[in-house]
Amino acid sequence: MSRELNFIACESSFTASDIVIVGYPYDGTSSYRPGSRFAPSAIREASDGLETYSPYLDLNLEDKKICDEGDMILPFGEKMEVMNIISTRTEELLNAKKKILSLGGEHLITYPIMRQYIKFYPDLIVVHFDAHADLREDYLGEKLSHATVMRRVYEELGDKKIYQFGIRSGTREEFIFGKNRNHFHPFTLENVKDVIWEIPDHTPIYVTIDLDVLDPSVFPGTGTPEPGGVSFLELLKGIHSLRGKNIVGADVVELSPDYDPSRVSSIVAAKIVRNMLLLL
Amino acid sequence: MSRELNFIACESSFTASDIVIVGYPYDGTSSYRPGSRFAPSAIREASDGLETYSPYLDLNLEDKKICDEGDMILPFGEKMEVMNIISTRTEELLNAKKKILSLGGEHLITYPIMRQYIKFYPDLIVVHFDAHADLREDYLGEKLSHATVMRRVYEELGDKKIYQFGIRSGTREEFIFGKNRNHFHPFTLENVKDVIWEIPDHTPIYVTIDLDVLDPSVFPGTGTPEPGGVSFLELLKGIHSLRGKNIVGADVVELSPDYDPSRVSSIVAAKIVRNMLLLL
Amino acid sequence: MSRELNFIACESSFTASDIVIVGYPYDGTSSYRPGSRFAPSAIREASDGLETYSPYLDLNLEDKKICDEGDMILPFGEKMEVMNIISTRTEELLNAKKKILSLGGEHLITYPIMRQYIKFYPDLIVVHFDAHADLREDYLGEKLSHATVMRRVYEELGDKKIYQFGIRSGTREEFIFGKNRNHFHPFTLENVKDVIWEIPDHTPIYVTIDLDVLDPSVFPGTGTPEPGGVSFLELLKGIHSLRGKNIVGADVVELSPDYDPSRVSSIVAAKIVRNMLLLL
Amino acid sequence: MSRELNFIACESSFTASDIVIVGYPYDGTSSYRPGSRFAPSAIREASDGLETYSPYLDLNLEDKKICDEGDMILPFGEKMEVMNIISTRTEELLNAKKKILSLGGEHLITYPIMRQYIKFYPDLIVVHFDAHADLREDYLGEKLSHATVMRRVYEELGDKKIYQFGIRSGTREEFIFGKNRNHFHPFTLENVKDVIWEIPDHTPIYVTIDLDVLDPSVFPGTGTPEPGGVSFLELLKGIHSLRGKNIVGADVVELSPDYDPSRVSSIVAAKIVRNMLLLL
Amino acid sequence: MSRELNFIACESSFTASDIVIVGYPYDGTSSYRPGSRFAPSAIREASDGLETYSPYLDLNLEDKKICDEGDMILPFGEKMEVMNIISTRTEELLNAKKKILSLGGEHLITYPIMRQYIKFYPDLIVVHFDAHADLREDYLGEKLSHATVMRRVYEELGDKKIYQFGIRSGTREEFIFGKNRNHFHPFTLENVKDVIWEIPDHTPIYVTIDLDVLDPSVFPGTGTPEPGGVSFLELLKGIHSLRGKNIVGADVVELSPDYDPSRVSSIVAAKIVRNMLLLL
Amino acid sequence: MSRELNFIACESSFTASDIVIVGYPYDGTSSYRPGSRFAPSAIREASDGLETYSPYLDLNLEDKKICDEGDMILPFGEKMEVMNIISTRTEELLNAKKKILSLGGEHLITYPIMRQYIKFYPDLIVVHFDAHADLREDYLGEKLSHATVMRRVYEELGDKKIYQFGIRSGTREEFIFGKNRNHFHPFTLENVKDVIWEIPDHTPIYVTIDLDVLDPSVFPGTGTPEPGGVSFLELLKGIHSLRGKNIVGADVVELSPDYDPSRVSSIVAAKIVRNMLLLL
Repeated sequence: MSRELNFIACESSFTASDIVIVGYPYDGTSSYRPGSRFAPSAIREASDGLETYSPYLDLNLEDKKICDEGDMILPFGEKMEVMNIISTRTEELLNAKKKILSLGGEHLITYPIMRQYIKFYPDLIVVHFDAHADLREDYLGEKLSHATVMRRVYEELGDKKIYQFGIRSGTREEFIFGKNRNHFHPFTLENVKDVIWEIPDHTPIYVTIDLDVLDPSVFPGTGTPEPGGVSFLELLKGIHSLRGKNIVGADVVELSPDYDPSRVSSIVAAKIVRNMLLLL
Repeated sequence: MSRELNFIACESSFTASDIVIVGYPYDGTSSYRPGSRFAPSAIREASDGLETYSPYLDLNLEDKKICDEGDMILPFGEKMEVMNIISTRTEELLNAKKKILSLGGEHLITYPIMRQYIKFYPDLIVVHFDAHADLREDYLGEKLSHATVMRRVYEELGDKKIYQFGIRSGTREEFIFGKNRNHFHPFTLENVKDVIWEIPDHTPIYVTIDLDVLDPSVFPGTGTPEPGGVSFLELLKGIHSLRGKNIVGADVVELSPDYDPSRVSSIVAAKIVRNMLLLL
Repeated sequence: MSRELNFIACESSFTASDIVIVGYPYDGTSSYRPGSRFAPSAIREASDGLETYSPYLDLNLEDKKICDEGDMILPFGEKMEVMNIISTRTEELLNAKKKILSLGGEHLITYPIMRQYIKFYPDLIVVHFDAHADLREDYLGEKLSHATVMRRVYEELGDKKIYQFGIRSGTREEFIFGKNRNHFHPFTLENVKDVIWEIPDHTPIYVTIDLDVLDPSVFPGTGTPEPGGVSFLELLKGIHSLRGKNIVGADVVELSPDYDPSRVSSIVAAKIVRNMLLLL
Repeated sequence: MSRELNFIACESSFTASDIVIVGYPYDGTSSYRPGSRFAPSAIREASDGLETYSPYLDLNLEDKKICDEGDMILPFGEKMEVMNIISTRTEELLNAKKKILSLGGEHLITYPIMRQYIKFYPDLIVVHFDAHADLREDYLGEKLSHATVMRRVYEELGDKKIYQFGIRSGTREEFIFGKNRNHFHPFTLENVKDVIWEIPDHTPIYVTIDLDVLDPSVFPGTGTPEPGGVSFLELLKGIHSLRGKNIVGADVVELSPDYDPSRVSSIVAAKIVRNMLLLL
Repeated sequence: MSRELNFIACESSFTASDIVIVGYPYDGTSSYRPGSRFAPSAIREASDGLETYSPYLDLNLEDKKICDEGDMILPFGEKMEVMNIISTRTEELLNAKKKILSLGGEHLITYPIMRQYIKFYPDLIVVHFDAHADLREDYLGEKLSHATVMRRVYEELGDKKIYQFGIRSGTREEFIFGKNRNHFHPFTLENVKDVIWEIPDHTPIYVTIDLDVLDPSVFPGTGTPEPGGVSFLELLKGIHSLRGKNIVGADVVELSPDYDPSRVSSIVAAKIVRNMLLLL
Repeated sequence: MSRELNFIACESSFTASDIVIVGYPYDGTSSYRPGSRFAPSAIREASDGLETYSPYLDLNLEDKKICDEGDMILPFGEKMEVMNIISTRTEELLNAKKKILSLGGEHLITYPIMRQYIKFYPDLIVVHFDAHADLREDYLGEKLSHATVMRRVYEELGDKKIYQFGIRSGTREEFIFGKNRNHFHPFTLENVKDVIWEIPDHTPIYVTIDLDVLDPSVFPGTGTPEPGGVSFLELLKGIHSLRGKNIVGADVVELSPDYDPSRVSSIVAAKIVRNMLLLL
């Protein structure tokens, strides 16, 4: 009998778990193509076709203690209420000593998560994979938006706390801001390993993966596809560069599964989540 | 040389026009499948394949004075700001003595439009075609939602001012509320003509068409498809029943074009808009 | 927090339940377009967008005691093993005094279910909605196939125990066989009510619904679409004709969700299942 | 071993055949959505899923002598050359005493076919099923176009030789022209039988079926979908009204299969072709 | 209020502009999959999701004076008339001292454009990116075809005036012809920079980009996808190799947007157009 | 006149042919996404858009003597019967001294083919391109399955007879088994040439190509897409490494064309088949 809705092999009880998966299916500020609300369930469904074993890492998901909590129910039209729900749940999970893998939804969900993480880990470092800088001051008058989220996070963290990789789209202002205020490594993921190497092993690291860092050829199912991205193996290698570091949380955002009728984007997202979980 | 973005044959200047088309591409409270934000441009594009002449009505769009204003730019994550923008533009157009054909977007856009119409036409009657009653007190805690919009409109208008046709889905409470407070004609459009007949010819009528009143076989491209709806010709006949009445405004909402890869839903919407325009 | 995989509102425990839903995602003999294996989960997912209340029947799913067991795991390449798994589970559920709503999968699943039902209810009557007669002696040499299933069921039941409605495709031999041996009412569902009327109220009835009885306009997502079928409302009315009868089990088969990118077919199937459950 | 490319059961040699199927995959003047070039092979492929027996007519395709010739190779950019190829092949087949079922391609292919038929059958009557009048004098300056084809045919035949059914779109001029010069029965197929009845049984009839006469709900896969059309059964009944008449040729045009990802449109077209063949 | 149909940020008046964008939505000789007629509007629509700033070039479209004229209306069935329209418009624009960015449509549009360019710039050099050599003497008897276009251009220009990059498909004759008569660099774009380097900076260069030079993984939406092509970044780098040269015109052809349901191909095309415009 | 169903340019008679193409459209054990049954006809259809000449190899398909037999008719629900049909036909073809290019269908078809090959060529070497090891002892209790096929083949051949390239998914046990018993070169195809070099030129080699070795970006149309695969050119190069070796047979499996609405996967498969044929 099968009736699982978990991410594959994530069947720990909450109490027994070290890691908790939670989905935030919010896409309320998406300006181009919505639908990342469908990502958490698409990722869980696609995970069913994956092996639990990663031959790249020689690690098996079945050896981890992971609880998949499902999704929070969110009132789509009430952005501040959504922010509060995410913020509150993150705080509860951190208080319960869990590492969190959050599934978006759009990138804005990272902001309420991060605010709690920063309270919890004052010396937090953020590693950010993305096609877009997300460093605008505001977007169409909105301060809280998928296009401003890293600017808001910056305002909480201050200079040189954010490592941005793969950025290939933005305004000139965003590129200048990124270069001046963050560790800014645009266009490729070639030097992730070297850069990450310099972060002390004990420093708490939060990883936020906007999947549109991938080239649209391998990941068409996203809200704002940006040609010229990295391959799946390049992103995987980038993530694997974090092995051995003190990763305390992560999110994977911006899958919009219905824009990829082949469903490959969902499988890609699930495999990234699997390997991210193996490193947590 | 062609570079039109108008609804076909709607090329009057604002000043010369009797009727104004305006698009509100908002889908912020859509709870199931978003994407009605793409409707206004999909409708305009599909209109290009239509004749301007309706043999059913023996009327030609080229004989009307219609200005297509395009779409308002809306901050998707800020619902109250969106409501204000719609409200303000509606007021301006009413003050300029225009009849308005508003293109959604989701059904919630009807609420800010209607509030202005009610101020302008105190004896306004609303004719409502829909699969869903939209009469909930709230939806997942939201007072302003596509699922509550006619309840909010009712609160402005009072008893027996709304004529609801084609409703085939809702809670038991909504069905009871509809029967008690409105003119409630569920399931079919068979008796639209007889019911409309009783409204005096001079009474101002606002028509709100949620296209999901159509059966999903002819209109799959919508947020909440509800099997068991009416055919295209039944809806057309329902709308034509209003001929000769004092229609002062209308909206056409809830096309979500990307869910219909055949693009037929967009063509259906455009043809409904065309014939609605011919009757304004 | 949401993590349901049930058909909407079917949350009874097994012990407390009167009705059990079980999925058999088997499509091993599909000769044209496979994919009905994905139907049970597509139906559960689509059910999430439905109201629990049917205004046609004025009944609410929340008032029933239904347990959704999920799907049996089936070895796709081993037909006889699959038949045994279905047969065994059906027998267990009948012994536990449950009414069963089985979700296909292809129509062949009806055969092992029915064999157990006939043992349990020796005077069983079968009501069969379908586009195809399914009365072939064999199909490409296979005795057990989606195209022979009602012939195999006939062999268990004998003459005049099967009521066939809506059949519009088959060989000349099948049409002759159907007319001679069964209650055969091809092409439409116009006379379902009159025909069903004659069955005594206490006689146990099993209902097997091959969803391709619907016209492909409303139900394109099926293995062998057959133009010229009935509308959603005609099928719904046909099913409602059984109200008040002693329905002891039912199955809903042959949704192949991926052939309908609009996902409407899945919603149609879910709504048929909902109303079938309300009548069990 | 299977390697058929024939329409199902059409396996006569050319010499032995009474009827010849030939495909003209031309869509060179399609103004909206091209792709009817793919229709002949899509129809043949879809025919493979049909029964050869029609229970409506109680006739079997296996009892007819039909040769499927395949498609003519056409230089897409050279319209006059295409017209000549079609014209020449039609003449050859008529000289060989064959009845022809031509598969479009777009509706313009009917013109060169018809010119030969008119030479061969001076008292020819044309029965025309279509959503569009196709009676324009020219279209964007083109005299020979899918939108002018019946006007060109009219010029060859003269007054009251063309019976038009189901027309629901055109300019006001086309509707007036149709009413004055042809037997014009717009919007529905309700009175086909009564009208056809008046044609003497020996009069040679050519039938041209533009499949967009069907409602887009059942036939989205076409170049210019026109909401408000007839159902599959209404068209089938319309065609069956010709039983007993002297049908000397037919064409089935305007399937554009790629616009219907469910492939149902191709199946619909194949079933119409099957029943048309049964009546030839 | 938004009602733009321009390519993003191309809002100069004709008079004020240095560069003019014009669309030729012609696909009349496409032999495999038509639909490039939809490319110009798909490219404009997709451009709306792009930034105007290219971080690769550190250039901003808003700093250029570009007028987007829209599309010419073309009679699809009349190839020679279409050739004349394109030829005439090109001549007018060249006389008005504009640089032209032409949007196909199929590759044949390059021929009438080029004939005018050659008159205007007798020492013109052509840089050609493509998967196919397009050097056939004729194709299915047609002299003017998407498969012969560069042969026709060659006949106007003579030996060693055309630089062909990325060619990976053709007959043996085409490959021999290309090697003997043109600068022929098949399979990759690795040596574009070195080759282009040799062209004097003042020599006028026309760039024709058949987007199927891209691998189908990143650009499936085209008429004749040819596996084994270059990546987006490789093409971008190839185009950027022209920086500093005297580019006097360009075209971007063979997007067939409906064959890519993810719409990524249209975004890819728009981004190529953006960077091509930045270099003009 | 065109009515070919052959793979392009494969028009030899059986007697005259050196190579025979045969299709086995079986997908009965596919556990994730079925539909490889449609592959043989999709590959033939897509081949029509290819050149017969490969500029990479400077070889032309028209210079080979190839007979395309079409597909065997298979009873989908009877696995052992299917195995027998494949086995028997392979034996007949080997006895007739043909080289065979078999088109799947799923990978399980390789097993009955290989058993005959091993009888015929006792010193046979197998070269296996795949994303998955296919080395399970059983899968959901099935010994014969697409997931166990190379284990079954191993049991026939013994140690170090199978060369596996590109494997990137499997259980830990499969990876250990592969490393110990076969020539196991996971993740990439970088060293194919060096490894193949060591096989003596006269040794008979059978090549089995599971197309999911390709990255899903270039080949989404498959049953179990596995992100992180090789590019088209990498696979092509891998196959070309076999030039000059004694290739006695090959199969190309696991295209599931309907999961790629762009149809590019079918074109990719056809081009791989073309070049494989050129090397046989």
